[in-house]
Amino acid sequence: MSGVFNHPWLGGLFDDAEAAAIWAPERQLSHMLMFEAAFTRALGAVGTISSGVAQTTASMIEQFDTDMTDLHHGTARDGLPVPALVAQLRQAAGENAKAVHTGSTSQDVMDTALALSIREFNPILSERLNQLSGALADLSQRFGDNQIMGRTRMQAALPITVADRLSTWAQPLDLHHTRLDQLRPRVECLQLGGAVGDRAALTPNADAMAADMAARLGLTNPGKAWHAMRDGIVEYANLLSLITGTLGKMGQDISLMATQGIDEIALSGGGGSSAMPHKQNPILAELLVTLARYNATQVAGMHHALVHEHERSGAAWALEWMILPDMARTTARSLSAAAQLCQQITHIGQGR
Amino acid sequence: MSGVFNHPWLGGLFDDAEAAAIWAPERQLSHMLMFEAAFTRALGAVGTISSGVAQTTASMIEQFDTDMTDLHHGTARDGLPVPALVAQLRQAAGENAKAVHTGSTSQDVMDTALALSIREFNPILSERLNQLSGALADLSQRFGDNQIMGRTRMQAALPITVADRLSTWAQPLDLHHTRLDQLRPRVECLQLGGAVGDRAALTPNADAMAADMAARLGLTNPGKAWHAMRDGIVEYANLLSLITGTLGKMGQDISLMATQGIDEIALSGGGGSSAMPHKQNPILAELLVTLARYNATQVAGMHHALVHEHERSGAAWALEWMILPDMARTTARSLSAAAQLCQQITHIGQGR
Amino acid sequence: MSGVFNHPWLGGLFDDAEAAAIWAPERQLSHMLMFEAAFTRALGAVGTISSGVAQTTASMIEQFDTDMTDLHHGTARDGLPVPALVAQLRQAAGENAKAVHTGSTSQDVMDTALALSIREFNPILSERLNQLSGALADLSQRFGDNQIMGRTRMQAALPITVADRLSTWAQPLDLHHTRLDQLRPRVECLQLGGAVGDRAALTPNADAMAADMAARLGLTNPGKAWHAMRDGIVEYANLLSLITGTLGKMGQDISLMATQGIDEIALSGGGGSSAMPHKQNPILAELLVTLARYNATQVAGMHHALVHEHERSGAAWALEWMILPDMARTTARSLSAAAQLCQQITHIGQGR
Amino acid sequence: MSGVFNHPWLGGLFDDAEAAAIWAPERQLSHMLMFEAAFTRALGAVGTISSGVAQTTASMIEQFDTDMTDLHHGTARDGLPVPALVAQLRQAAGENAKAVHTGSTSQDVMDTALALSIREFNPILSERLNQLSGALADLSQRFGDNQIMGRTRMQAALPITVADRLSTWAQPLDLHHTRLDQLRPRVECLQLGGAVGDRAALTPNADAMAADMAARLGLTNPGKAWHAMRDGIVEYANLLSLITGTLGKMGQDISLMATQGIDEIALSGGGGSSAMPHKQNPILAELLVTLARYNATQVAGMHHALVHEHERSGAAWALEWMILPDMARTTARSLSAAAQLCQQITHIGQGR
Repeated sequence: MSGVFNHPWLGGLFDDAEAAAIWAPERQLSHMLMFEAAFTRALGAVGTISSGVAQTTASMIEQFDTDMTDLHHGTARDGLPVPALVAQLRQAAGENAKAVHTGSTSQDVMDTALALSIREFNPILSERLNQLSGALADLSQRFGDNQIMGRTRMQAALPITVADRLSTWAQPLDLHHTRLDQLRPRVECLQLGGAVGDRAALTPNADAMAADMAARLGLTNPGKAWHAMRDGIVEYANLLSLITGTLGKMGQDISLMATQGIDEIALSGGGGSSAMPHKQNPILAELLVTLARYNATQVAGMHHALVHEHERSGAAWALEWMILPDMARTTARSLSAAAQLCQQITHIGQGR
Repeated sequence: MSGVFNHPWLGGLFDDAEAAAIWAPERQLSHMLMFEAAFTRALGAVGTISSGVAQTTASMIEQFDTDMTDLHHGTARDGLPVPALVAQLRQAAGENAKAVHTGSTSQDVMDTALALSIREFNPILSERLNQLSGALADLSQRFGDNQIMGRTRMQAALPITVADRLSTWAQPLDLHHTRLDQLRPRVECLQLGGAVGDRAALTPNADAMAADMAARLGLTNPGKAWHAMRDGIVEYANLLSLITGTLGKMGQDISLMATQGIDEIALSGGGGSSAMPHKQNPILAELLVTLARYNATQVAGMHHALVHEHERSGAAWALEWMILPDMARTTARSLSAAAQLCQQITHIGQGR
Repeated sequence: MSGVFNHPWLGGLFDDAEAAAIWAPERQLSHMLMFEAAFTRALGAVGTISSGVAQTTASMIEQFDTDMTDLHHGTARDGLPVPALVAQLRQAAGENAKAVHTGSTSQDVMDTALALSIREFNPILSERLNQLSGALADLSQRFGDNQIMGRTRMQAALPITVADRLSTWAQPLDLHHTRLDQLRPRVECLQLGGAVGDRAALTPNADAMAADMAARLGLTNPGKAWHAMRDGIVEYANLLSLITGTLGKMGQDISLMATQGIDEIALSGGGGSSAMPHKQNPILAELLVTLARYNATQVAGMHHALVHEHERSGAAWALEWMILPDMARTTARSLSAAAQLCQQITHIGQGR
Repeated sequence: MSGVFNHPWLGGLFDDAEAAAIWAPERQLSHMLMFEAAFTRALGAVGTISSGVAQTTASMIEQFDTDMTDLHHGTARDGLPVPALVAQLRQAAGENAKAVHTGSTSQDVMDTALALSIREFNPILSERLNQLSGALADLSQRFGDNQIMGRTRMQAALPITVADRLSTWAQPLDLHHTRLDQLRPRVECLQLGGAVGDRAALTPNADAMAADMAARLGLTNPGKAWHAMRDGIVEYANLLSLITGTLGKMGQDISLMATQGIDEIALSGGGGSSAMPHKQNPILAELLVTLARYNATQVAGMHHALVHEHERSGAAWALEWMILPDMARTTARSLSAAAQLCQQITHIGQGR
């Protein structure tokens, strides 16, 4: 994630605690261990290993205390953490080492861990979209009948109601809900393919294992691996940027409405200035614009990552690691900032 | 659209005749006239004007021979063509001038015209996605049991079947179909809002007019104007780039498979070189990568256009004009090039 | 170039005649022929062919009437026009066919033709940067002492002079001049490498030929081919976007200053509206923002094209063809629009 | 910075210790304090305050132990850390409170701190560019005469020497040096403008103070504030991406050369796989491609930040905070990874 999130002071502006927890490394690690445990249990469920070994080994994995230093060195060496993690788990499994990860591959672990993060994150998106819709509906009830000047091409056009302006902020939120509902099954997906994505090492139990794991993990079972098919992930990034874009429009409008000479909105608790203590800056309104342009920029990188050669592109895949978690945290912060901003609004428009 | 499309020689590589026709200025103009005619008929349908005047004026509009020079000058003056077009139509309407465009606004005309272009273009996308799925299924039947080397991180991993590789090209096409079906109602939408988007000048008949026009034009009726809510348009751009990205992955794979030393695919009719006439270049495979990266770049501009201030942003809106039609033509060419490329494939992999 | 340039009505807003002429296909073709003629003359100069044959053949090339239909088909077949063009030239050269292109390659022709376009275009950039600086200096003389409100974070801060605001538009123009002067030798470069860029087929006369050609064509001679080293071209794209970005800031400021309630600038000749004929829209100010965001989006694609594999990447190279000429035309239009906009300014700020 | 840098395991792949130290928050804070101390000393130098007060206060600032919690809350409140930092400093200064920051503004502090980071970072770029050039020259000495297949459009063309291929990786490095030398004075600049950038609150000593501060801080003195003129910063981002793009081309080439069936390069110490322990993955070569595409994506966001309205845009400015430090760290890692990769090369090409 962009350093502004974890930053000792910039985090105060950019970070969102709930999103930070979901996208935290510890959570990512626990999701990787969830995959490995579910995989081991599935090996038992299909009889590849005994249910006793499956039970013992999976429990060990679920409580595993990872050596982070080794994970760091392993990632430097292998380009990803899974080989080192699996080696640690197998050593801990002792005679049951074969019950760990056998027939799977690093990308199964990491993509499934990502899918688990997204599955945890999506309810937050839904809930915040709802809350924001509610906050805007409340503002509309309080100020909706007031008048403001409708502006086109930065020029005064004709008067409109505050409700009209608010509806341009609120309407797309409902559509984002629909979009989220429609894409969830395309992105909250189990990844299980083995070394080259064909599940060969799991034959003939691959499909049964996938069904078992998907059920255990609460993910959809796409029926095949999607190692080199990234459209679901990129579609998700698109939605994140659609959301921040909608809120960026709201922030831009509020910044303009709060300008002296326009004075169509009153905000409490604006930010101070080191040179002009009297000044009240619409910090959160500007932040919404910043976050919208950040995601609008990042989304292009995700689309470039669609050119994912062969069965696995280390180059294209790692580009997703650099970009997607940031886009998610940016979106969470945009939604929380928009909600805070609605709280700061003390008045909009003029009564008639 | 990028000049490579209309270019006297580069058009040979980049252009797609069917898409060129749909996105041609003449077609855009006819869509604008379709809007104006439907608007006039709707004025008649709700009784704002007599049905006779509506009929006469709409027919005139439908057969109108636009003065293109005036339209060019008008666009230079006003920043868009509608004021000049409306002036021409009103002059032609004579005493019925008020039956033309009264209560509407430029963005109603241009966005509805765009929606009509998209509605014409989407069946082409569907059809080509189907044809490409068919072509890939055919290749899978012919060569699917052959072996190629599965490659991860640009390295030989384990052998896979040709069918495995082909499925990574084909699977996302089905999802793109689903995505297209899901978003069509969000983008093939009538735009009707009047000067500031509140339909005030059409009160109390606005909703009746919108329903009438949507039915006449074969568009969905979103119930409100979406002048400043661009999420539908941007979601559409996302899908275009998802499609080209999927085909870019296919093109990248084929370029790599065709490399001497790898030799996992045989192509007929590759391109020649001015220095090495013997050389066979996988022109279309490379083109798929180019087109994917082009759309991946453009999509960011569409997301920036979401920050659309007030009731109409001339700046953000015109950015869409510069970008979206190109993305559509790029996507059409990508689909046609992928189909041609499938035709060029004479062999994949090795029999066992 | 984006279709908005050549578009029958949108061209009125987006196109710039001088830039259109420089980036026109006919000019590109004449630049390709200039390369071929200079190459043939250089073959004569180093004695590979007789001076008579060189003279005769080069003159023929300079007056060659290209078969455009064949060029179009050739580009569709080969992915670029040069093989077809060379075949036409060689047929016309008859017994002197070997005096045409022998030892060169398509990329030598097209990259040198591009360098010639850039060399023609750069003086226009310089001249317009100068004119704009002059126009801003003139505005500063007329209105510089007037007051406007200095605004930070979209809020009134403290009064400043109009000269202060104007200097934020003008200062970067001087730096852009410096940047242009510094990079010209890195981009106005002869391309001469032969099939794989090592000039092997021209040994031992390659360097002599390069020097001769560079002198004839008025380009710098980098001493080696740059087929796969695109940093010069991308650096050029960067500058184009820096220029449009500076003008986008000016346009954004003017749009804001022209807003009712702010009224810090008066413009003549704004654009009209189809719904509100009285309205005066700051079309050109908004256009500057649109063009800035367009180039800001495109520049990313040029940077992606730096990942140019091997001795020539058809995929990365063609991405430049899709993007760079548009960026140049966008920049030219931005400079001409900024100059027009300065003409429209009738007043800024308030006298004291 | 992207979370991959500070990440407990991904940091092993993505992070660069030297760059991490320069871009660390503590260093940013010390740079802000350096600005405040230099500002206070300059107030003394021009006689606005007594030299005794200047000395005492500046020393206090230089040793100041910042309350980070307060800084975090202040940033959440004000949108940037300076008001809180100044309040802390003034409280510590007691009766000399006026000797702290008076006449300056937050952006002076933060932009100058950024310029100081860039000034520390640039020698690392220079040094690493040199080291890499040296490493490539060494490889050329060892393997330069060997042959590899020259490839164009992903196809075998004609044999070239290893030296030819290596020169396409090395040549641009020299140009990047030139670019860096040329832009340093445009980006390693003091920022001093006061509340609205006109230095009014420092009149008549503003220029003398700027000269004094620039000398103390080792920065160039641009003569004016550049609060709203971001071209220098964006030009710097361009260079960072040009560097990573050049290395991305090198990484892409090496990935391709290392493919089985091509086998033109031998690497030691590739990364392992969790599914195929025997496999040697060219991790660092792929990483160079990832980092190139990351910066190629980010650079667009910096160009969008050029549209910086009025005297200070909170929205555009904060976008730089989110993007630029990451681009720098990405570039540093790209250079260190390229150097490591050169060390891993045990052979290139075939002897003749």
